[in-house]
Amino acid sequence: MVSIGGGAANTTSLLRLINQRAVFTEIFRLGKASRPELAQVTGLSKPTISMALADLERARLVRPVGLRTGGTGRAALLYEIRPEAGWVLAADIGRTTVRLALADLVGDVVVRRQEPSAARSYDGLVGQLERLAAEVVAEAGLASGDVTVTVFGTPGIHDKESGALRLAPGLPGWERPGAVDALAGVTGSPYTVENDVDLAAVGEGAYGLGKGVSHFVLVSIGTGVGMGVMIDGGLYRGARGAAGEISHLPMGVPESADGPGAGRGEFESVASADGIVAAAARLGMTAATAGEVVAAARRGDPAGREVLAAEAGHVARALAGVIAVLDPELIVLGGGIGAQAGDLLADAVAERLETLVALAPPRIEVSTLGPDAVILGALAVGLSTARDLVFERAVASGPA
Amino acid sequence: MVSIGGGAANTTSLLRLINQRAVFTEIFRLGKASRPELAQVTGLSKPTISMALADLERARLVRPVGLRTGGTGRAALLYEIRPEAGWVLAADIGRTTVRLALADLVGDVVVRRQEPSAARSYDGLVGQLERLAAEVVAEAGLASGDVTVTVFGTPGIHDKESGALRLAPGLPGWERPGAVDALAGVTGSPYTVENDVDLAAVGEGAYGLGKGVSHFVLVSIGTGVGMGVMIDGGLYRGARGAAGEISHLPMGVPESADGPGAGRGEFESVASADGIVAAAARLGMTAATAGEVVAAARRGDPAGREVLAAEAGHVARALAGVIAVLDPELIVLGGGIGAQAGDLLADAVAERLETLVALAPPRIEVSTLGPDAVILGALAVGLSTARDLVFERAVASGPA
Repeated sequence: MVSIGGGAANTTSLLRLINQRAVFTEIFRLGKASRPELAQVTGLSKPTISMALADLERARLVRPVGLRTGGTGRAALLYEIRPEAGWVLAADIGRTTVRLALADLVGDVVVRRQEPSAARSYDGLVGQLERLAAEVVAEAGLASGDVTVTVFGTPGIHDKESGALRLAPGLPGWERPGAVDALAGVTGSPYTVENDVDLAAVGEGAYGLGKGVSHFVLVSIGTGVGMGVMIDGGLYRGARGAAGEISHLPMGVPESADGPGAGRGEFESVASADGIVAAAARLGMTAATAGEVVAAARRGDPAGREVLAAEAGHVARALAGVIAVLDPELIVLGGGIGAQAGDLLADAVAERLETLVALAPPRIEVSTLGPDAVILGALAVGLSTARDLVFERAVASGPA
Repeated sequence: MVSIGGGAANTTSLLRLINQRAVFTEIFRLGKASRPELAQVTGLSKPTISMALADLERARLVRPVGLRTGGTGRAALLYEIRPEAGWVLAADIGRTTVRLALADLVGDVVVRRQEPSAARSYDGLVGQLERLAAEVVAEAGLASGDVTVTVFGTPGIHDKESGALRLAPGLPGWERPGAVDALAGVTGSPYTVENDVDLAAVGEGAYGLGKGVSHFVLVSIGTGVGMGVMIDGGLYRGARGAAGEISHLPMGVPESADGPGAGRGEFESVASADGIVAAAARLGMTAATAGEVVAAARRGDPAGREVLAAEAGHVARALAGVIAVLDPELIVLGGGIGAQAGDLLADAVAERLETLVALAPPRIEVSTLGPDAVILGALAVGLSTARDLVFERAVASGPA
């Protein structure tokens, strides 16, 4: 709604800020944009666009980048976000691997780092993150204060009230109240902690198969299982951040035999990497990892194929529950098992689903983002936060 | 964003419409409101409010209704929506019962009607709806063209492309392409067809336990089972309108014995009214209806109690899946069984859930709306549609 009246001076500078933000947001979205393009998408007049661009250039948020020629008429000067106007650090904190990536404000990754995770010890992991972050920032030629925002992806749920992770047995020590607060010291920047599978879903929506799909889920199967739920293009977290914690989906496993281990849900117990290795052992296979079972199945080994067929059955029953509740347009399979065996599983899962669901099953596809999905999601989350932060710091707090 | 420039006359009348709509919407929300209250909630100046109120009164959408006194200062003139400015007809089309209610634009129900459903025959049901609608409209002293919008609640999913209901075996003939189009003739007004359980969830959010709860589900257990999913205060339908079709939730029922009947899902087969009667029969009880089994359980009959305990187990397993996927803040039990036996089930279900879910189970409560839940949801949907329609007809199309 539009208010007329109030102090004229305040209204003018507020309008000017609103216009600047609109122009900044559109350049962010479009990558490169000319004055006429910006006038068209924002509905603002060309003189207003020019004033906003001058303000944004003065604040060192955008820069002219060249001319767009073609068609008739004059070539149009193009503007883009100044990449160095902000920096996002993304960290994927796993039980086995820690990954970091530093990107500029246009999302170009300038430094990455990956190491086996020191997750066995809380202090060890915090120290590792601090060291890696410092190395990454230094390698980019930045000071630690230059990072605009840091996004951490972790297993489990970040309980903001207690400052603890919940449902993250793979990260010992992090379920202690206040444990998560140590992440504040990793870069000193504002930071967010998100569930890793939720971030993988965001990554899938921003850069993967979920692009342009309103309602989809990313089902991750690896050392654990989890799901990220995207609704209307945004991440749905649930009332306590526990949406998609499908490790506990009931599977109809008899409670007496092969039931879930302590703290593990039925679906996770049977379908995760451990479950695959255990199922193989019951068929007389000696496989140290789920990857070996998958490789055996690819070679045509009967036991390996039987284990994969059973895995498809477990995944299908879990997805039947997901479909009944959410009716997603697309299901993306990710995680270690999803990436290694997704092509072997997808058709078998879809076939099993035919008899388990009310309507035809939705599309089931294997993520193409591989082990980068969590980092890409963290960057997507970080970039949109950084966009707002740098604008507020540079423009809204300065003289308009 | 705010655009300055463009044709002055157009901008002025557009602003005037925007302001009228804002004032109309706020009066709709508040029930009764004074100029100072409207100025405060809309941020518009008092002269602008006065102009908008004069416009809305002239369009016969609002009317002055009295004075609000109290506090210091002058008594303030109050405005309210003119009840007769629009009419909503709500119809709950069930397999056993058909309910209709006609409400004015402030939501007061002026006529209701309820009859055993003629659902066995498609033509019979269409004829029944036409007759009942005509009776209800006449009893209210209206002409058929006076109904602003009609909202039908039905089992299944309205497939808009084919004009058929899907997953509605209880309404024979409605799965034929174009079958739903007959509803256009019931009142001749614009109409919407929504899943009945989805409407019950909307009703719960507008008038029941879901009021003010962002994320909740309404689980309906009766002759069938279903769920309405409310996310961020709005109904979530899923990609094909099939979100919450939990009849197919996997329950771990062995496929050989007591498995689902044709076209029915595992959860519905064991947990719906039929499932309860069948379970009682297996224990040697002769009960014609699930209500008799519930009554026996209330009397302390051992077989009745055993059936209810098993029912609690089925519901708990289904809810474990719902909780894993959605992490709702609240689960409301509704439908025939939910209403009759909800008090016997809720605690037992919560207790079973303790070992089935990752975090503590959410609140589980029994709907207090009873058999009116669907009608109330239909009225809520209809009222917000009618609010927009009457505004557009009376104001936007007339001279501003």
